[in-house]
Amino acid sequence: MQTKAILIIADGLGGRPTDLGGRTCLEAATTPHLDRLAARGALGLVDPIGPGVRPGSDTAHLSLLGYDPYALYTGRGVFECLGIGLDVRAGDICFRANFATVEARGTDLIVIDRRAGRIESGQDELAAALNEIGIENVPEVSFEFRASTEHRGALLLRGERLSRYVTENDPHGTGTPALRFEAEPDHEDEAARRTAAALNEFAERSYETLRDHPVNRRRVEDAEPPANFILARGAADCPDISSIESIYGAHGAVIAGGALYRGVALACGMTVINVPGATGGVDTDLGAKARAALEALGEFDYVFVHVKGADNAGHDQDAAAKAAFIERIDSELVGPLVERLDWSTTHLAFTGDHTTPIDYGDHTVEPVPVLYVGPSVAQDATTSFGEREAGRGGLGRFSGRVLPILLGYGNWAPKFGS
Amino acid sequence: MQTKAILIIADGLGGRPTDLGGRTCLEAATTPHLDRLAARGALGLVDPIGPGVRPGSDTAHLSLLGYDPYALYTGRGVFECLGIGLDVRAGDICFRANFATVEARGTDLIVIDRRAGRIESGQDELAAALNEIGIENVPEVSFEFRASTEHRGALLLRGERLSRYVTENDPHGTGTPALRFEAEPDHEDEAARRTAAALNEFAERSYETLRDHPVNRRRVEDAEPPANFILARGAADCPDISSIESIYGAHGAVIAGGALYRGVALACGMTVINVPGATGGVDTDLGAKARAALEALGEFDYVFVHVKGADNAGHDQDAAAKAAFIERIDSELVGPLVERLDWSTTHLAFTGDHTTPIDYGDHTVEPVPVLYVGPSVAQDATTSFGEREAGRGGLGRFSGRVLPILLGYGNWAPKFGS
Repeated sequence: MQTKAILIIADGLGGRPTDLGGRTCLEAATTPHLDRLAARGALGLVDPIGPGVRPGSDTAHLSLLGYDPYALYTGRGVFECLGIGLDVRAGDICFRANFATVEARGTDLIVIDRRAGRIESGQDELAAALNEIGIENVPEVSFEFRASTEHRGALLLRGERLSRYVTENDPHGTGTPALRFEAEPDHEDEAARRTAAALNEFAERSYETLRDHPVNRRRVEDAEPPANFILARGAADCPDISSIESIYGAHGAVIAGGALYRGVALACGMTVINVPGATGGVDTDLGAKARAALEALGEFDYVFVHVKGADNAGHDQDAAAKAAFIERIDSELVGPLVERLDWSTTHLAFTGDHTTPIDYGDHTVEPVPVLYVGPSVAQDATTSFGEREAGRGGLGRFSGRVLPILLGYGNWAPKFGS
Repeated sequence: MQTKAILIIADGLGGRPTDLGGRTCLEAATTPHLDRLAARGALGLVDPIGPGVRPGSDTAHLSLLGYDPYALYTGRGVFECLGIGLDVRAGDICFRANFATVEARGTDLIVIDRRAGRIESGQDELAAALNEIGIENVPEVSFEFRASTEHRGALLLRGERLSRYVTENDPHGTGTPALRFEAEPDHEDEAARRTAAALNEFAERSYETLRDHPVNRRRVEDAEPPANFILARGAADCPDISSIESIYGAHGAVIAGGALYRGVALACGMTVINVPGATGGVDTDLGAKARAALEALGEFDYVFVHVKGADNAGHDQDAAAKAAFIERIDSELVGPLVERLDWSTTHLAFTGDHTTPIDYGDHTVEPVPVLYVGPSVAQDATTSFGEREAGRGGLGRFSGRVLPILLGYGNWAPKFGS
């Protein structure tokens, strides 16, 4: 019999010893529900990509979901485009993009604010105007820009003979001109030159289109920086990813506030479940996510729930906030699940996508604790959930593939060989 | 100094918690000899192929013996042919094959019994008749069929310009026509078409040759289904496997009842030791295997002993039978070895090739306990042999390569680099 599965990834979960009594934030947090699951199930340590590899969030998720990021990953843009809801197809070139404020000086456009004052309204109107732009000098290329939160968005480029090997136009500083897109020196070919030419035309036209847009006229009147330019970076093309359903036969859904995580899951063939109040921040409604996950398990074979807040607190180097958010995950997400899941027919895995220790404030290489519980899992001797307890766990240490192992406990794995 | 080595693989050894008090079959079994070896040696967990990969028996054995099945594996047929005793050479195309019963209806041959009533005598005479068949329409192609147990056998195709990318003729059902061999759609080339044409001619001629054979005339008289057709599946070509001796310098032997395991070992360059009474089933003579292994260690540097019964009981979902067979392994195979091996000059490894849990009745993804003992092995804190004790073992968790590690303890490993 095949069982249901739920995978919870708490972004940036892992950590290092902190001022909280030498404990990690996870160890310092009071997590009675996770501890009870640890006592019923088994723990291990997972290197999200491999030992000593410092993961990005996108590559870590690909690896934890069972894919080889070294073979598949071309850049974050494609997952951002997917996560924002763009219809990404093979051959498309995708970018992370954002509104910026520039000022014309001679032929240069000088970047004044890389985030256009973190614009909070009117982005969709600006995006609609951008999407009217037609590229004239490069045949058969079209664009689509979509806004997400504040200044953020994604840009998709579609057409024949395009290449992801182009540089970006973001100078990563202010008071300096926006850069021109160019073919990367190591990959200079007709497709890359064509792509760069189309992007340069789009960038110029974006300024012409946006500078006098009513939204920006109002912003200037209000002494706010106009959102009059598009900076694009992280060129990526759509990797050829076999869906999880095609490999395992399991039909899955994702619940995630952040566009990137929805995008990775979409690339792997999951269905997105939108949960009002799931923001991808520390203010997210975890109870709503728990309810949505329970409901989704009626329809889907597995559900992947992503929670972002612990990573944000880690990047902010705020140990108390990270521990507090982990406590919220335990009480508001794990607690309701523990109470309401049918444990005779469900397996659960809980882990992080990487460590974000307080002392460093960014991702580091250490492995992350992972917990499995359900009818196929032989209980080990651990009794709480944390980095060091996981180091004593019965599952040892392995690399990536947390979802394939979870689906394997649920008897979904295909046999390799005979 | 280099020491002798003995590798025991108990097929399907691993399991999940069962009704035997929540223990796995291995944990529930009384295994004083394995427990004593665990106390003297060290335990770990091995993912036969990799974490979250559900192994076949053939791919798992290749990986445990130190090879990369993703690079080498083309199908089970080649190991079946080798194991049955066919002389497989580079370029040969190998199949698992079996006698079946068909009935002519018009131009179709309708499959009536895919196993020809599990025929129990006369197979060698039928095989001899088949091996008289000459292929007329495809030049320079010859066949060899060899019968093994009951309806089972193997078919080898030899000639220039052949391809393994052909479909099978087994419809995997009855009352339906035998299929025609065809080039696989993704690999349609002259070699594949040539191979399919030769196979179709062989299949037709097999019916003409077998239908009126005296063995089948007797079967029909006795109201038994005639073995009048050959179904072939699992086309594979001989992988280019460097022998274990060429890599490690160690000269090895295999003791295994099942043709598949002898075949994998032959492909890796081991010498087959035939042991009367070693059946590859639960009725196998384990004491005879122990005596043969002890004797072989006089001549060979290492001996690989394969024992099948625990897997059979797992597939039958019979927890008591699986535990009982593991107890027999302990008392009839491990016990005599423990007593008679020269422990100052021998290393022993004991593991399984995959889990076959009772609740599922087929291979699953979980790692398998592995035990090493001998003069180079640092004793860990474990005191019994089982899944959870192995999770506490001093050897941690690793993937495949159980034989290279064993030969490494015995100082046989080649240095990579300098």
